[in-house]
Amino acid sequence: MSTEPYLLTPGPLSISMRTKQAMLRDWGSWDVDFNSITGRIRERLLAIVHGAATHECVPLQGSGTFSVEAALGTLVPRAHGHVLVPQNGAYCQRIARICRYLGRKVTTIDYAEDAAVKAADVERALAQDPSITHVALVHCETSAGILNPLDEVAQVVARHERRLIVDAMSSFGALEIDARRTPFDALVAASGKCLEGPPGMGFVIVRRSALERSEGNGHSLALDLYDQWVYMQKTTQWRYTPPTHVVAAFDCAIAQFLEEGGQAARGARYARNCRTLIDGMSALGLRSFLPASIQAPIIVTFHAPDDPHYQFKSFYNAVKALGYVLYPGKLTTLETFRVGCMGQLGERGIGGAIEAVGQVLAQMRAAA
Amino acid sequence: MSTEPYLLTPGPLSISMRTKQAMLRDWGSWDVDFNSITGRIRERLLAIVHGAATHECVPLQGSGTFSVEAALGTLVPRAHGHVLVPQNGAYCQRIARICRYLGRKVTTIDYAEDAAVKAADVERALAQDPSITHVALVHCETSAGILNPLDEVAQVVARHERRLIVDAMSSFGALEIDARRTPFDALVAASGKCLEGPPGMGFVIVRRSALERSEGNGHSLALDLYDQWVYMQKTTQWRYTPPTHVVAAFDCAIAQFLEEGGQAARGARYARNCRTLIDGMSALGLRSFLPASIQAPIIVTFHAPDDPHYQFKSFYNAVKALGYVLYPGKLTTLETFRVGCMGQLGERGIGGAIEAVGQVLAQMRAAA
Repeated sequence: MSTEPYLLTPGPLSISMRTKQAMLRDWGSWDVDFNSITGRIRERLLAIVHGAATHECVPLQGSGTFSVEAALGTLVPRAHGHVLVPQNGAYCQRIARICRYLGRKVTTIDYAEDAAVKAADVERALAQDPSITHVALVHCETSAGILNPLDEVAQVVARHERRLIVDAMSSFGALEIDARRTPFDALVAASGKCLEGPPGMGFVIVRRSALERSEGNGHSLALDLYDQWVYMQKTTQWRYTPPTHVVAAFDCAIAQFLEEGGQAARGARYARNCRTLIDGMSALGLRSFLPASIQAPIIVTFHAPDDPHYQFKSFYNAVKALGYVLYPGKLTTLETFRVGCMGQLGERGIGGAIEAVGQVLAQMRAAA
Repeated sequence: MSTEPYLLTPGPLSISMRTKQAMLRDWGSWDVDFNSITGRIRERLLAIVHGAATHECVPLQGSGTFSVEAALGTLVPRAHGHVLVPQNGAYCQRIARICRYLGRKVTTIDYAEDAAVKAADVERALAQDPSITHVALVHCETSAGILNPLDEVAQVVARHERRLIVDAMSSFGALEIDARRTPFDALVAASGKCLEGPPGMGFVIVRRSALERSEGNGHSLALDLYDQWVYMQKTTQWRYTPPTHVVAAFDCAIAQFLEEGGQAARGARYARNCRTLIDGMSALGLRSFLPASIQAPIIVTFHAPDDPHYQFKSFYNAVKALGYVLYPGKLTTLETFRVGCMGQLGERGIGGAIEAVGQVLAQMRAAA
C-alpha cells in the first residue's frame, strides 16, 4: 500500500487516510446515527455556498453526471423547456447530450477548446430567443481546464429572467461561489472532487422555490430530485440505499475541509499547486495549453513533449512507476496530457510530480 | 469502533473488516490497475449465474434501484413496451412506479402481503393480453420476506415468448439462479446485499441479444445500460466516475464469497441463520409472519410482541444498545418488525441477536 501512486487527475483524487478510515465502519441506512451524518453534510454543503436562506441541498447516489442529469430532468419543464448550453468542452457536450436523451430542447453556443464562455454571447442568445428557459453552464470545464465566468453569466441569465443550472463539479469548495450574490437555480457537484471525499455520490444545491415547483416533472424515479428531497425532509433518510461508507467518509472529508480553513484555504492550496506546476513544467520545457487568464486552478493541460519518441502511454507508465498517475488529454486535434492540482499529494506535494516528469523526460532523451 | 452494532437489515449489511480495508486505497478510474478489477468483477458475477455464453454483466453506479430502473428503461421499448408486474410488496410496487415515470405501460397482478406470486396467474395474464412484452418479477420480496417462484415464472414467460426482467437484489449470490436453465433477459442486483460488499453500485446481467437491440431506447443517459456496456467493452472503463473504493471492496467481497464456497455455501449459511432465528424467536414467544414454504432465507418478518407496552422505537433502541440493529416492518396493516439473516454477524452470530431480543423482552415485562 505504501507504493500506491498519487492521483493527478480530475477525480477520483488521492484523499487523506483519515477520510478513507471513516469507511471502516458499517452504518444502518435507517438508523438515526447515519441519518444525522446525512443531515450534517447537507447543512455544511449549503453553508459553503451561503445558500441556507434560499436553497436546499439534495444529495444523490451515483457519479456527478447522475446529479447533473437529475438537475436537468427535475428542473427543466418537459413541455416547453429549452436549454442553452455555452459549449467549450466535453462536460458541456454531455449536458447537451443529456437534454437530447430527455427530450428537452437544447441550443448550443460553440467555442474553441481554448476559449472561455462569454457572458455577452449568452446575453445575445437570450435576447434573440425568448423560448430559452434555462442556461446550463459548466463552471470549470476540465476538458482543457478552463474557468468559465460563472458570476457574469449568472447576472445575465437573471436579468433576462431565465434560470441557471451550473455544473460546479470541479470548482465546488475550491472556487468561491456565493448564492447570495450569484443567482442560480441549481448547482451540481460531487463527493470526489475539491472536497476530497471518495467518489460515489453527488449533490445538487437547488433553489427551494424551483424545487417546490418541480413535482411530477422528473423523467426518472431514481433521478427525481423533488422526490428525493420530499422523502428526505419527511424521514431524514435517503429514498434508496445510500452508499453509507462513502457518505461517512465524505462527512469526514468535509470536516477536514473546514479544519483547513474552508473554501479560501482549499482554493489557495490548489492555486499554489497550479502555479508551482505550470512553472515547474515550463522549466522542463513543457508548455501549458491555456492562457493564464482562463486557467482554472484545478487541472492543467500541457502540450505533449516536442520529442519524436514521445508516446502518452509509455510516458504515463514511466511517471506512474515513479509514483504519480497523470491523465490523458481530451482535446480533439492537439496531442496533450493533463495534470490535476487537487487532492492530498503527500509530503513532496506537486513538486514530487514535477520531479518525476523531469526524470522521465531525461530518460526519454537519453534513450533517443 | 468495537461497539459498532451488527446490522440485521435488508442492507446495508455488516461486512467483513477485510472488505472494508480494501477501501483504504485510492484508484485512478482511468488506470489499468483499476479497470482490471472492474473486468474481474464482471466476469465473476456472470459466472455466479452461469451466464457467460448468453449474457453480459453491466455494472452501474448508484443503489440497486438505479440498476432496476436502468434495466427497465434500457430494455422495455419506448413505443409499445408493456410490463406485467406480479405484485406482493414494496419492491414490486416500485417497479410499477418506475414504469409509470418512464411512460411504459404497466399492468399489475395484486397479491396479499403474505402470498407468493403464482406462475399460473402470470400464464393467464400473458394468454389474455398479447400486448404484454415483459414480465418484471421480484425474486425475493423483502417487504415481508417472500420467495417468489423465479424458475416457474421464467418458464411461463419463455413459453409465451415474452421477456423477463428479474429484481434479484436480495437473492443474487445466496439463492441458486442458473441462466442456462432459467431464461431471463435481465437480472438485477447490487454490491451491498448477499455478496456482502459495501453499497454504492448495482449490476445487471443482461442477455446479450437483448442488449444489442436496445441501442437508442434508454430514457436516461446516466441509466442507459447499452451505452454503459458499449463504452466499457471499448475502453474497459466505466463511462462516468465509478465509486472506486466501493468497487475495490466489492471485488474483495466477491473473493471472500468464492473462498467461502460460492452460492451454495452462502445460501446454506443464510438458511441456517434463518432457521436459528425463527426457532429462537419462537422460543421467546415471537411468531414469524410468513408460512415456512414461502419464507426466503434473507429477512424474516415477525409479529410485534403481544405486549401493551411494546413500541417499535424503544424496542429498536434497546436491542441496538445491546449491539444489534433491527429493521422496521413494512406491512400495511399489521404491527411487525424485521430481522435480516445476511452479513457478517461476528462470533456469536445470529444467536447473539436472539439473546439481545430476549433480554429486551424480559426488561419490557419486568417494567410492566
